[in-house]
Amino acid sequence: MAAEGRRVPAARTRTRVRYPETDRMGVAHHTHFFVWFELGRTELMRELGCTYRALEEGESLFFPVIRATAAYHAPARYDEEVLVATHLVRVGGARVEFEYAVSGCRDGTLLATGSTVHAAVDRQGRPRRIPDHVRRRLSGQAEED
Amino acid sequence: MAAEGRRVPAARTRTRVRYPETDRMGVAHHTHFFVWFELGRTELMRELGCTYRALEEGESLFFPVIRATAAYHAPARYDEEVLVATHLVRVGGARVEFEYAVSGCRDGTLLATGSTVHAAVDRQGRPRRIPDHVRRRLSGQAEED
Amino acid sequence: MAAEGRRVPAARTRTRVRYPETDRMGVAHHTHFFVWFELGRTELMRELGCTYRALEEGESLFFPVIRATAAYHAPARYDEEVLVATHLVRVGGARVEFEYAVSGCRDGTLLATGSTVHAAVDRQGRPRRIPDHVRRRLSGQAEED
Amino acid sequence: MAAEGRRVPAARTRTRVRYPETDRMGVAHHTHFFVWFELGRTELMRELGCTYRALEEGESLFFPVIRATAAYHAPARYDEEVLVATHLVRVGGARVEFEYAVSGCRDGTLLATGSTVHAAVDRQGRPRRIPDHVRRRLSGQAEED
Repeated sequence: MAAEGRRVPAARTRTRVRYPETDRMGVAHHTHFFVWFELGRTELMRELGCTYRALEEGESLFFPVIRATAAYHAPARYDEEVLVATHLVRVGGARVEFEYAVSGCRDGTLLATGSTVHAAVDRQGRPRRIPDHVRRRLSGQAEED
Repeated sequence: MAAEGRRVPAARTRTRVRYPETDRMGVAHHTHFFVWFELGRTELMRELGCTYRALEEGESLFFPVIRATAAYHAPARYDEEVLVATHLVRVGGARVEFEYAVSGCRDGTLLATGSTVHAAVDRQGRPRRIPDHVRRRLSGQAEED
Repeated sequence: MAAEGRRVPAARTRTRVRYPETDRMGVAHHTHFFVWFELGRTELMRELGCTYRALEEGESLFFPVIRATAAYHAPARYDEEVLVATHLVRVGGARVEFEYAVSGCRDGTLLATGSTVHAAVDRQGRPRRIPDHVRRRLSGQAEED
Repeated sequence: MAAEGRRVPAARTRTRVRYPETDRMGVAHHTHFFVWFELGRTELMRELGCTYRALEEGESLFFPVIRATAAYHAPARYDEEVLVATHLVRVGGARVEFEYAVSGCRDGTLLATGSTVHAAVDRQGRPRRIPDHVRRRLSGQAEED
């Protein structure tokens, strides 16, 4: 996923399957994994010193999803704690890509993997370049500056 | 609910229980009834010539919920069509109140009743009076002008 | 809320406002407070040694919501941490009642209060009495046995 | 998408963007498109005489999502009516695939495209073959029998 010798920014976030996230099949509805992916990248960005809320409010920089995929391997059950492992796999000039793996906290079973691609836009939805200081932070290079 | 001789603005809206609205009890999760209440009042306002979207965008008038209640009588099942009967029971100077009854379309079973109270605020969340022409429409008096 | 001299079972749960929980008013949609209430009572029951999942799966005891109310005092903003204080105010023969207060973690502002009443039913939705050992745990009297 | 000379089962479903489906960017959150995809395939299956609810309840046949993708081209705005065009692109022995295109009803702007792949499983989640009479209906060949 990353060039050798380069650290890929990553975070591990936990959440518990909520009752309204289950459906009548008795397990989490597939759409909620995308919500958990969002939890994952939000926490990753916070850890990188680049809180998404601050980007929107301070930089008028928005990252709408332009592509999302998920593959489901095993169901997530009610009240189960799941671990969302998030990797930031690419920061381009006007694009960011994340990959995710969701697993059960108890036994490590892989439940789902997925990815999202985000465009960088301004408040009006027009494409814009990601400012350099944001790119550096997102690439995990901020401390090396 | 209404003074004698006065027509209370009312609307009947149908929706079908969606799969992700069910939970592992096999029926619609109680929170979704509040979403259906919102469908009901949105369609009622549209029928009154007072589309909520237009209020927000044209009048900068917002109606956040300040109080919501629901009583649940019978479960709503997956793929079942439900009828939301909405009444606008009060339009005050800076407040609007709706009442709702949700029933099954097939046999008319009452599933839930509820109410919401809304404050009138501006874009910044500050209280404001409901303009007269909006009040008249909401009270169903627009045609009588 | 409680008879004098009696400890009311209570729990404090934190959650962070998720992006999809916000609406175009820029704040958490009012329906999500009911989801947070559910987080609160789930954690309270877990702390009382009476995990809701275990009740459903081990005792075939279900607690569907039969009444829910909320009063909204201030908006919950994106990415804000909120505290859900939950009290179990009554355990009857076939009924349980909870009260909730949601506040901002940063400055303690009260955002919303609410309550839910639950019926005790079996898997088929038929009323049933709450078993004594469950009632004792829910009333926080388990340790005194 | 289909072999020449073969009609691909398709359906067109309308839905309106609900307030709680919007987020603070002011447009529908990307996860809700997957809910609309589900509306699309549910209606398509109903039109094919193969209602999903009946499959679950009558045949104990479940179609959990094992892969989901979406590409987002333009935002869906609050209260906008959107059209979900659904195609059933493949029915294998134990797998079904759908493709979706969501567009604005007013001007036909393409908002998103996507796909879902479903496994056929029984109530316990074990793989099972799709019964022949179900396959025929899903392939739109039922009338030719």
